[in-house]
Formats: sequence, C-alpha cells, structure tokens
Amino acid sequence: MATTVQFWFEFASTYSYLSAMRIVKVAATQGVVIEWQPFLLGPIFAEQGWKTSPFNLYPAKGRYMWRDMERLCAKRGLPLVQPEPFPQNSLQAARVTLSLEDQQQRAAFVRAVYTAEFGEGRNISESGVLRGCLDAAGLPSDVLDRAQDPDIKNALFEQTARAKENGLFGAPSFIVGTELFWGDDRLDDAILHATSI
Amino acid sequence: MATTVQFWFEFASTYSYLSAMRIVKVAATQGVVIEWQPFLLGPIFAEQGWKTSPFNLYPAKGRYMWRDMERLCAKRGLPLVQPEPFPQNSLQAARVTLSLEDQQQRAAFVRAVYTAEFGEGRNISESGVLRGCLDAAGLPSDVLDRAQDPDIKNALFEQTARAKENGLFGAPSFIVGTELFWGDDRLDDAILHATSI
Repeated sequence: MATTVQFWFEFASTYSYLSAMRIVKVAATQGVVIEWQPFLLGPIFAEQGWKTSPFNLYPAKGRYMWRDMERLCAKRGLPLVQPEPFPQNSLQAARVTLSLEDQQQRAAFVRAVYTAEFGEGRNISESGVLRGCLDAAGLPSDVLDRAQDPDIKNALFEQTARAKENGLFGAPSFIVGTELFWGDDRLDDAILHATSI
Repeated sequence: MATTVQFWFEFASTYSYLSAMRIVKVAATQGVVIEWQPFLLGPIFAEQGWKTSPFNLYPAKGRYMWRDMERLCAKRGLPLVQPEPFPQNSLQAARVTLSLEDQQQRAAFVRAVYTAEFGEGRNISESGVLRGCLDAAGLPSDVLDRAQDPDIKNALFEQTARAKENGLFGAPSFIVGTELFWGDDRLDDAILHATSI
C-alpha cells in the first residue's frame, strides 16, 4: 500500500516551484498522497552563517541556477520571470498556507503563489498579490487575516523547527517514512519509494 | 552532428564518481565524444571561504549526501565505501590524469581511481594506490613519475583557472558549447544537448 509523501517547500525557493507544479500529477499516477508542508529556510540558513540565499552568496552558483531554471522551465512548458527582490519574503505566504487545513486548498493556494512569484515575477510579500492568489485558488480573501493569528505564527515557528529536526537543509525536500530526499531531481525517487514501503 | 561534451571532474567528489562510471555508456548511445577534464575544486572553494568540502562544513547536507549516494549506488549496482579522510587529497591523481594525452587512457585511469576511492575506500593520495590504478588501467607505473613534471603541475593549475573562467563551482560539471550543466543529475541533459547543436 502506498504511503504518504511529505512535501516540504519554501516559497522563496526556485526549485520548489518546479516540484509544486508537477507533484500532484506524479503522485496521482502512483496513487501516493501528498502532505503540503510549508517551512522557512531563513532560520536554517542563518544558523550556518548565511544571511541570504546561497544563490546570492555564491554568484557563479546563482548564475548557473537561473540558467538551469530557464532550461527546465522551457522543457516543462512553465513560465519563468525572476522576481525582485530575490529571494522573496515568504513569511505571509507560508502562514496563509499553514492556516489552510484542507490539503486540496493548500495545493491550490501554493500553486497560485508559485505561479505569481516565478511565473509572473510578482512580489509575494504584498497582501494584494496574496489576495489574488487566494482568489485564483477559489478561496476567500479573509484567509489572509486569519493567518495573522498567533497560533498560526507559532505553528510556522514549530514547522521550521520540525524541518531542522528532520535534517532538512534545503528545499524542496521530501520525507517518506524514514527517508529524506532533497531537490526536484529526487521527486520521482521519493514518490516511487512511497509505493514500496 | 553530435558535438563534444567536456566532463569536468574532481577526484574528491562523490557525485563525480557516479558520472565517471556511466558517462562512457551514455555518450556511446548518443554518439557523443567525451573530453575528460580533471580539475581541483579546493582553490575554487577556498575563494568562497570554504577550507574543506561543503559536506563537512554543513553536517546535515553531508549526512544527506552519504545516504543519497548509498541509494544511488545501490540502484546502479556500484559499490560504495566511504574513504578516510574525506575529502581525499586528489592532487596526484589529477596530475597523473592530465599527463595522459590519450582520452581512452584517461577514461580507464579515472575509472580505476574512482573505483579504488569510493568503491574500495582506499586513499588515492598514496603512490601505491595510484600505481595499482595505473596497472588496472593497463598503463605503466612510470606515468606516476612523469606526472611530477613542472609542465604537468602548471597544466593542472591552468586547468583549474579555466574551470573558474567557465563558471564552474562544483563537480561533476559538463560543458557543451556555451552551456554549463552541473551534477550527475544533469549528465543525460548534457549529452542530449550535445546531439542537438
């Protein structure tokens, strides 16, 4: 029997965009259930002395990443517009996602946010942009206010602590039973592993 | 007409092992020619403030890498033994490779070194180990002495400078025309691109 794949994503992460846009289809072909798990990489990066994305800290790696994304998006028929600034402040989007208990609603909202951010280059820290994403996902805009609840803020804090406990150091990451898979390049292996345990 | 793929590898790199063990077969199926290009990542890492492998600097990433390697090696039927120390000092192995002008000889020697290092966990900075690798590749052991030639030392220095000029920041990397591909996960894309330009 297929088990669950936890999909851990960071809204500021380009490669998480790739996974978010295909994981539903890949999981469905294998009968695997996806749990959408937003978290923040910032606190994890900060602990290793990084104050911004490694793609900014290491320019050669950053230049390569954008070219790699261009090629991969072209291959997959996905739009790609680099947002300003990069990385985007993903705090509000992560809180809104956590406030949605229904996994289908999370999936729809997450895909709308990634499309706005990397498909259209919009600033996902703006409330107006997030309201548009809620609307695109068929959700009421007052979800945005609910996401300011202290319980949600605390839940995101705990989520990021959980990510660290699980050994996460980047995004996207996939947890299947006791196995961790990192990167969009391991999405298919993660789903396949879920069908075998 | 298929063009050439430059395969840039660092002997201390685990994922370069994966590529070295399969690139000949993948290239052959597509009629692509491989140029074996050894280089040192140490000087490139040092410029960004890293004094050892990022897999040692960032323990969560390091733990993940070894587990990822275990899974990938198991899937591909490759042996995996973690060498001590890690990363290995790859200077002599890189020099010996550069001293071999024939690409077939390079391929044979490189595969022998990776097999000794990550398949058997041997120390590739030891002359005895490298002599064994030359023997396994059907090459005379005096190649090891020739590799001490100042011209070869200089050639490796220039090779690493060239890697940097080409925007390399990790290994394995593949250069195809004006395109750079990074990581064993991009080997197939690199070979495919070579057949299209």
